[in-house]
Amino acid sequence: MAKRTHVASDLTLEQIEQQVVLKGWVQKRRDLGGLIFVDLRDRSGIVQVVFGDNSKEALELADKIRSEYVIEVAGKVIKRDPSQVNPNIASGEIEVVADTLTIINKAKTTPFAIEDDVEVNEDLRLKYRYLDLRRPVMYDIFKMRSDVTRTIRNFLQNEDFLEVETPILTKSTPEGARDYLVPSRVHGGEFYALPQSPQLFKQLLMVGGFEKYFQIARCFRDEDLRADRQPEFTQVDIETSFMSMDEILEMNERLIQAVMKDVKGVDVQIPFKRMPYTEAMNRFGSDKPDVRFGLELVDLSDLAEKTTLKVFTGAIEDGGVVKAINFKGGADTFTRKELDELANFVAIYKAKGLAWLKVTEEGLVGPIAKFFGDEVTAALIERMDAQVGDLLLFGADKANIVHDALGALRLKLGKEHGLIDESKFEFLWIVDWPLFEYDAEEGRYYAAHHPFTRPFDEDIELMDTNPAAVRAQAYDIVLNGYELGGGSLRIFEPELQNKMFELLGFSEEEAKEQFGFLLEAFEYGVPPHGGLAFGLDRFVMLLAGRTNLRDTIAFPKTATASCLLTAAPSEVSPAQLDELSLRISATARK
Amino acid sequence: MAKRTHVASDLTLEQIEQQVVLKGWVQKRRDLGGLIFVDLRDRSGIVQVVFGDNSKEALELADKIRSEYVIEVAGKVIKRDPSQVNPNIASGEIEVVADTLTIINKAKTTPFAIEDDVEVNEDLRLKYRYLDLRRPVMYDIFKMRSDVTRTIRNFLQNEDFLEVETPILTKSTPEGARDYLVPSRVHGGEFYALPQSPQLFKQLLMVGGFEKYFQIARCFRDEDLRADRQPEFTQVDIETSFMSMDEILEMNERLIQAVMKDVKGVDVQIPFKRMPYTEAMNRFGSDKPDVRFGLELVDLSDLAEKTTLKVFTGAIEDGGVVKAINFKGGADTFTRKELDELANFVAIYKAKGLAWLKVTEEGLVGPIAKFFGDEVTAALIERMDAQVGDLLLFGADKANIVHDALGALRLKLGKEHGLIDESKFEFLWIVDWPLFEYDAEEGRYYAAHHPFTRPFDEDIELMDTNPAAVRAQAYDIVLNGYELGGGSLRIFEPELQNKMFELLGFSEEEAKEQFGFLLEAFEYGVPPHGGLAFGLDRFVMLLAGRTNLRDTIAFPKTATASCLLTAAPSEVSPAQLDELSLRISATARK
Repeated sequence: MAKRTHVASDLTLEQIEQQVVLKGWVQKRRDLGGLIFVDLRDRSGIVQVVFGDNSKEALELADKIRSEYVIEVAGKVIKRDPSQVNPNIASGEIEVVADTLTIINKAKTTPFAIEDDVEVNEDLRLKYRYLDLRRPVMYDIFKMRSDVTRTIRNFLQNEDFLEVETPILTKSTPEGARDYLVPSRVHGGEFYALPQSPQLFKQLLMVGGFEKYFQIARCFRDEDLRADRQPEFTQVDIETSFMSMDEILEMNERLIQAVMKDVKGVDVQIPFKRMPYTEAMNRFGSDKPDVRFGLELVDLSDLAEKTTLKVFTGAIEDGGVVKAINFKGGADTFTRKELDELANFVAIYKAKGLAWLKVTEEGLVGPIAKFFGDEVTAALIERMDAQVGDLLLFGADKANIVHDALGALRLKLGKEHGLIDESKFEFLWIVDWPLFEYDAEEGRYYAAHHPFTRPFDEDIELMDTNPAAVRAQAYDIVLNGYELGGGSLRIFEPELQNKMFELLGFSEEEAKEQFGFLLEAFEYGVPPHGGLAFGLDRFVMLLAGRTNLRDTIAFPKTATASCLLTAAPSEVSPAQLDELSLRISATARK
Repeated sequence: MAKRTHVASDLTLEQIEQQVVLKGWVQKRRDLGGLIFVDLRDRSGIVQVVFGDNSKEALELADKIRSEYVIEVAGKVIKRDPSQVNPNIASGEIEVVADTLTIINKAKTTPFAIEDDVEVNEDLRLKYRYLDLRRPVMYDIFKMRSDVTRTIRNFLQNEDFLEVETPILTKSTPEGARDYLVPSRVHGGEFYALPQSPQLFKQLLMVGGFEKYFQIARCFRDEDLRADRQPEFTQVDIETSFMSMDEILEMNERLIQAVMKDVKGVDVQIPFKRMPYTEAMNRFGSDKPDVRFGLELVDLSDLAEKTTLKVFTGAIEDGGVVKAINFKGGADTFTRKELDELANFVAIYKAKGLAWLKVTEEGLVGPIAKFFGDEVTAALIERMDAQVGDLLLFGADKANIVHDALGALRLKLGKEHGLIDESKFEFLWIVDWPLFEYDAEEGRYYAAHHPFTRPFDEDIELMDTNPAAVRAQAYDIVLNGYELGGGSLRIFEPELQNKMFELLGFSEEEAKEQFGFLLEAFEYGVPPHGGLAFGLDRFVMLLAGRTNLRDTIAFPKTATASCLLTAAPSEVSPAQLDELSLRISATARK
């Protein structure tokens, strides 16, 4: 075989008259008046090759080639006839007249066409992932993914960060219920766990004086899978010492700015907006608001009290809220049936109904209009900035239900009615998170983030008196309505860490059992530290404008955590189980 | 807390008179005539801080600080008295006069001193790894590791390679006996396996048309551990399509050249030497020869036949060989007892003894001298290039025993007697490997590398007639006597792959069971491809001039695959086992 001289996209008018050797796959063959045209595909793109009378031998052989054959072609670059120029491909102004053809490998007919916009069942794509990956659109995603990691690494290494690899075979942690376990052969009956994140190790590296750590780290979580979850995922994991929250956010803004510039050619303005958690919930009904469009939630609780509508007044009496969104110009958008469907939609989020009002020349029109007096109506119209033709949609319930329901409705309407500028990238920090979540059923507090999260210094005294009011020095980074990542400053004082465990209901023994080595480490001079982690898969998904996380993972698993290509997981031999001192329970679901 | 303005190594004469804020650990405190001197350590190095009368408050507080306290200091940079200059540290010409001191965190007395050359049991270092990592020499290793990966990635990405992540949760393979298994919760009784290498996936990426793949990949092998093995290790994994072996080797030579230049500042000449496997074995008794010194094995089999020494003639009659090394000037180096110890050493490699001869003014002297006639003696002296004062050391046995024994002896003598220039980096390709290994006991062939390794085209016909003579298009890269990595071209024709499986004794069913998805993939147009993998841990170890692989891994495991820091592996709860449909056998070793 000859040495390849070029890839497809190298060939432009500059190579005219040059002899070239190309290698790749047959995308398409067309026979036309004694000539054979072949679209040769390689990783870079497509180039047109012409077989004709100049080489009878090659022409004859070209008659035998089929789609996806692997071939080698030697020939001369010539200019295409102007009428034949293809502006969609890099080599569109030239073609290669073949002197010789070598069939390197044959191919059966593929189960689906190797084309960007092929319509094919995803299971089939996953079973034949190696064919799916031949589609240029897939190559482009993985090229982007590789470019993203390149920019991230170069940025962080230029900022003096070390990339440090932390163990994959590690210890089961308290959130252990979702750990993947790995039986030990040497220590029969004992198990390693795959890390849900490198959290403990990155904190230990701070104790170890590394000061600036990062890792593009594989993490594992054995949870019940949803469409957008994978058993293994990749996170850009960062931890620093001696930096304030402002410094950490600022550095990460520059990191994201660099990625957007290098990978998308987009200039992102920094600093990003910062929005307190409660503001995000109040205005957008979400802790990861998509701020590319309005349709904000407006609080009407004070007005609702003055209506005679039982649903409204009752919600307020029960400690709930009444909020609404103004779907501008939407008064005639929906039929009565479609409005009912919207009510069904918010019911998913436990809303008991979806009250609505149309704004017309004659005033507010709708089933609930009659419960509003003139004064309330006027105040409502003013607060909702309501104009003739608008549609007002109401939620009345506990705050979290109203936020969930109207937040989801807001997104649905935004997407389905073209309110979102999809070309925009709106980054946003959500800050001032609560440190604790109260579980009313169990009557106890949980760590909203994780038990190492640092409270605001001025809130520490509230830990004893009003835990629910303690704010965490935590931050999430949100992009276009997706949580891209998050982090926090960490507790670095042993006393505060112990107090935290106490509040979370850990006995001293439990804390020691689960975090003993970390607590011990904390006695030897721990620097103030904090960090952040981005979900790389999701970031790439958003950058590539995709909606399926699996498209960003070379060999993903299905929603039941199976690999359709290799048929993993699978049974293993009794000998292997013996070596691991294990037996399968009779109850194993088969 | 104030914002840090500098790290220790930033501070030179250029900052004289500047106000700075420093943060770090107390390396050392000395009280001297009303002044307190503190060596402040951060990730970059050490800087001397002086507390004196300029700030009584700081001076008083400084009296309270101990080693490894975390402190913040604000003060002014001044020039040191010339007599006090410390040329060993970057900031050695200056010191900082402290205005304020903040104790950020206290520290207990550490179990060992945070010093580069601390003498401490490795188990203690591993249990307190976070303290061990504070030693500057450890930070330097991980900085080097981070730099090595940076250079590798930038080099490969500039060559148009994509870094693609392949799964960690995958399918158990035929070499499965050494797989770590992961029980599936969703598919009770079934298991994933952690990959021993991304071999199958990188070949699938070639089928998928990616053409140029790399990954710095975590790999796992549950083998009986030796001092230099870890259950998880990191490999620089590379695969390309359409490149010849020469092109692959040339590209990897440039890659290594770039690493050596960037990380060590060393100019390495390329191309590297290439040595056939058989030559390496014959001359150095090793497939990973350290070619920084001579002491080569010399074949004396033809002369041995002409001696009357039973051990020699018998070895030849049994199809073995007789070889020797000339330890120049070593005639008087060893006592009789030390020569016996050398014989004990080669016995480890199954040699039955170690015959020796001293070259003296009076001729050859030693227990076996009398078995050599004049003619043989003269020929021996000539072939061994023997001069008065030399010591000749002999091996006579099956070739593999002689090679192992004399190869090991050569290394031992080279190291212990200063024959090796330790500053040198000698890279070497070992090529022309056998494709098969014959197992005489089982009477069958095994794949010397793995079953996808490509034979030389001209040797394919030998597969039927003389498999042992078939050479593989495989290559190992050797550095200073260590195997750094290796690779091969792969089989890409389905027919040849099937023939290979047949020769290896796989039934059609077995091949299908184990590699079905790969064999199916091979029917859809596979490009010629090949690749290579480097052991990153070992490469960093050699670059850092270390001999302990664990020093290059942030959180390594012991020889029994335990983590002394986190106490992994460990027991898990019965509930966790239930969820995985598993029970522990009564026979579990506890």
